[in-house]
Amino acid sequence: MDILAQAQQLDSEDVLKEKRKAFSIPDNTIYLDGNSLGPASHAAQMAGQSVLDAQWQTDLITSWNVHDWIRLPRIVGAQIAPIIGAQADSVIACDSTSINLYKLLHSALNLQPDRHVIMTQQGNFPSDGYIAQGLMAHRSEVSLIYVDEQDIIAQLDESIAVLMLTHVNYKTGYMLDMAKITQAAHALGILVIWDLAHSAGALELSLDEHEVDFAVGCSYKYLNGGPGAPAFIYVNPIHHNRLKQPLTGWMGHANSFAFEQDYVPSDGIDSLLCGTPNIVSMAVLKGALTIFSDVDMSDVRQKSLKLSSFMVSVIEQHPALQPLELVTDMDDARRGSQIALAHPDAYAICQAWIEQGVIADFREPNILRIGFAPLYISYFDVLKATDSLAHIMQCKMYRAQQYQTRNTVT
Amino acid sequence: MDILAQAQQLDSEDVLKEKRKAFSIPDNTIYLDGNSLGPASHAAQMAGQSVLDAQWQTDLITSWNVHDWIRLPRIVGAQIAPIIGAQADSVIACDSTSINLYKLLHSALNLQPDRHVIMTQQGNFPSDGYIAQGLMAHRSEVSLIYVDEQDIIAQLDESIAVLMLTHVNYKTGYMLDMAKITQAAHALGILVIWDLAHSAGALELSLDEHEVDFAVGCSYKYLNGGPGAPAFIYVNPIHHNRLKQPLTGWMGHANSFAFEQDYVPSDGIDSLLCGTPNIVSMAVLKGALTIFSDVDMSDVRQKSLKLSSFMVSVIEQHPALQPLELVTDMDDARRGSQIALAHPDAYAICQAWIEQGVIADFREPNILRIGFAPLYISYFDVLKATDSLAHIMQCKMYRAQQYQTRNTVT
Repeated sequence: MDILAQAQQLDSEDVLKEKRKAFSIPDNTIYLDGNSLGPASHAAQMAGQSVLDAQWQTDLITSWNVHDWIRLPRIVGAQIAPIIGAQADSVIACDSTSINLYKLLHSALNLQPDRHVIMTQQGNFPSDGYIAQGLMAHRSEVSLIYVDEQDIIAQLDESIAVLMLTHVNYKTGYMLDMAKITQAAHALGILVIWDLAHSAGALELSLDEHEVDFAVGCSYKYLNGGPGAPAFIYVNPIHHNRLKQPLTGWMGHANSFAFEQDYVPSDGIDSLLCGTPNIVSMAVLKGALTIFSDVDMSDVRQKSLKLSSFMVSVIEQHPALQPLELVTDMDDARRGSQIALAHPDAYAICQAWIEQGVIADFREPNILRIGFAPLYISYFDVLKATDSLAHIMQCKMYRAQQYQTRNTVT
Repeated sequence: MDILAQAQQLDSEDVLKEKRKAFSIPDNTIYLDGNSLGPASHAAQMAGQSVLDAQWQTDLITSWNVHDWIRLPRIVGAQIAPIIGAQADSVIACDSTSINLYKLLHSALNLQPDRHVIMTQQGNFPSDGYIAQGLMAHRSEVSLIYVDEQDIIAQLDESIAVLMLTHVNYKTGYMLDMAKITQAAHALGILVIWDLAHSAGALELSLDEHEVDFAVGCSYKYLNGGPGAPAFIYVNPIHHNRLKQPLTGWMGHANSFAFEQDYVPSDGIDSLLCGTPNIVSMAVLKGALTIFSDVDMSDVRQKSLKLSSFMVSVIEQHPALQPLELVTDMDDARRGSQIALAHPDAYAICQAWIEQGVIADFREPNILRIGFAPLYISYFDVLKATDSLAHIMQCKMYRAQQYQTRNTVT
C-alpha cells in the first residue's frame, strides 16, 4: 500500500475522527502545536460569549450564585478528573501551573519535617525549578538537586523529601514511567509531585491507580482551554486535610463569606484555592472540556502513538528529510505525544513551515517540536505536513527567510 | 428646589454623564454593587470576543507575538497606572490580589532583615490577614498584629517591618489617610503596602506623589474588568530591582525563553510576574480600561462624593428609612465610594431591593452596602433607588421574602 492509501486507511479507521468538527481551526492550517496552545473550539468560544454577554451583562453580581461561578474551580476540576484518572473531588482548577506547584511543594515539604531535599530531572521545564528556587530563598534548609532523567530511580534515597518531575519532557517528548517511579519513591518514604503539562489530554493517565501523591497541570495545551487558561491541582485523597499550603487566600477558607479574622482551611481539595477565580477564563475552559466528555483516553493515547510513528515512518522515506535528526525515543513506553527533530537551522525551518500553513514550534537551541493532538489531527494532515517539510528542506526555502521574533509560550 | 429637580440639575451638570453609554447595564436595573463586581461594557465584551474569535481562533500560537499577548501584563499595567497616580512601568497586571499581596509581603520583609512584625487594621478584608498568616506558617520569626483603624499612626514603632493596610474598608467605606500614614511609617523605617481593592477606579490616588512603597489592587470592582479579572501590583521605582519575591515563575525570569536552569529575575516590575498570564481575562480587562483613557480621576472622585452625600440627604428626608443606621463616616476625607447602612434585617432588605431592580449587597452581620460608581450611576438613579428602598421599608416587603443564598464575592 502506498503511503497516501495508508493515511486514508488509518483515517477511515479512526474512532476519533468526528471530533475534529468541534474545533475552530482555520482552513489551510495543519496545527501541530497543540502542545503549546490548543486551538479554539466552538464550545469554548460559545462559553466565553455566554459568560460575557449573558451572565456578566445580565445577571451581574448575582451570577456568582445563579450561574454557579463560585463552584467553577470544582466543576472544572471534576471535568478534568476522569481525563487524568482521578476521582472528581481530587482535582481543582485555579491559578497557574507555577503557582500551584509552589503550593504543593510547600505542602509536601511540610509533610516531611525530617527531610529537606527536592529532587527533579535535568531538562525539566525551567519554571518548575525556578519555583523550587524561589521557595528555597525563604526556607534555607531546603535544597534542590537535578538528576539525569534516565537515572532517577537509582538516585533516590531517604534524604529526599519530594521528587518533583515532569511526566513528559517539554522539548524531547521523553516520557517517564509514572507508576514505577512513584512506587520506587514511596518505598523510600519520598512524596512525588508530577507536572502533567505535556500529558493531560493526550495520554492515558491513572493517578489514583498509581497512588500518585500530587500533580499539577496545564489546561491550555492538550486540554484546549484557551491562552493562559487556569491550571489545575490533583491531591490524592489520602493527603486531603493533611496539607498546609502557604497561599491561604479567602477562597481556600472553610467559610469564605463569614469574613472571620483567622484562616481555617477548607476540607479537601478546596483548601488549595487562594484568591477570586478568573471566571471568564474558567468558563472558556469549562466549555473546552465538554469535548472530552465522551472520549476514551485509551483511544486518544493509541491514536497519538500512531500519528507520531506514522510521521516518523514518512520522514524516513524522504531523502530531503534525512538532515533532521530524530531526538525523541520512539519506544511507546517512553514517548509522550510529540516528536522533536534537531537541525542547526531549526528556527528558520519552523518559520518557513508556518508560512506554508503547518504550525509547529521551535525550542532552543535547535529543536523543531511537533505535537500530535489526536482530537483534531488526521493521518492525512501528518502526510501533508511532512510533504511540506520535505519541500522546504529540498528547496532550502528557510535560507531566504527573515525571522525576527523567537518567543512563544510552551 | 424639590429633590427631583435637584437630581435633574446635578445630572445636567455631570461631566461624566456620557460615560454611562459605554456600559451594558440591563434595563430597569440600578447597579449599586460596582464595588463588588463592576458591570460589563461594550469595550470589554468586544475585547473578549476578539481574543476568542479573531486572535486565538485565527492566529493560534502566533498570537503571543502578533497580538502582543506576551506584553499584556505590562500593557494593562500601563493602563491602570494613571488611574492610581503612578508611572506606567511601575504597575503590572497578574494573578489575584491575595497572591500579589503574598509576593509583596515577602519582598517587603526581605528588605527589613532586622524587623519581623506585620501590622494591619482590625476589620481589614480577611484575605489580606489570611495571606500574612500563611506566610507566617513558614517564616516563624514573623508576627502579625491588628490595630484599630482610628489609631494606626499612634501604634507605629520601630519594631514594625511592614504596615499592610486596605485604603478603604470593604464593609464601612472608611478611608484611611494614605499620605499621612505613609509618611508617619517612613519616619520610623516602616514599609507600607496599600490594598486598593475599594479605591482604584473610584478615588483620586497619587501613589508616586505620596511615595507609597507598594500596592495591590483588584480590577473587577470599580475598574470593571470582569469577574475574577487579573489583579495588579504597584512597586515604587525606588524599590525596583531590590525585590526578592518568592513566586519565581518563568514569566518573571530575565529571559523567559532562554529556558535557563537558574532563576534570574527580570528588571523592574516584570520580576513580579510568575506563570503564564490569563490572556482571555487580561484582554477583557484591557478592553474595560479603555473607558478610563479620557477620564479625569478628580471628576470621578467629586462625583462619587456627591452621589453618596445626595443619597444620605434623601435618606434623611424619608421617615421610613430612619430605622437604617448610617455606619459610614461621611467626612469627605474619611470615606471611599460607598455607604453602609446597618439594620437587623439587612440581608432580607437587600434581597427585596434586588427584586425591585436595585442591586446592592449585604455584608455580615447586618450591613447593607451601597457602592457608587461615578461612570454609570446618575443622581436620578440614586433618587429612584432610595424611593424604592423607602417603599420596601414602609411596606415591610422584606418580611415576606424567602432568601436562600448569602454568598457573593466582595
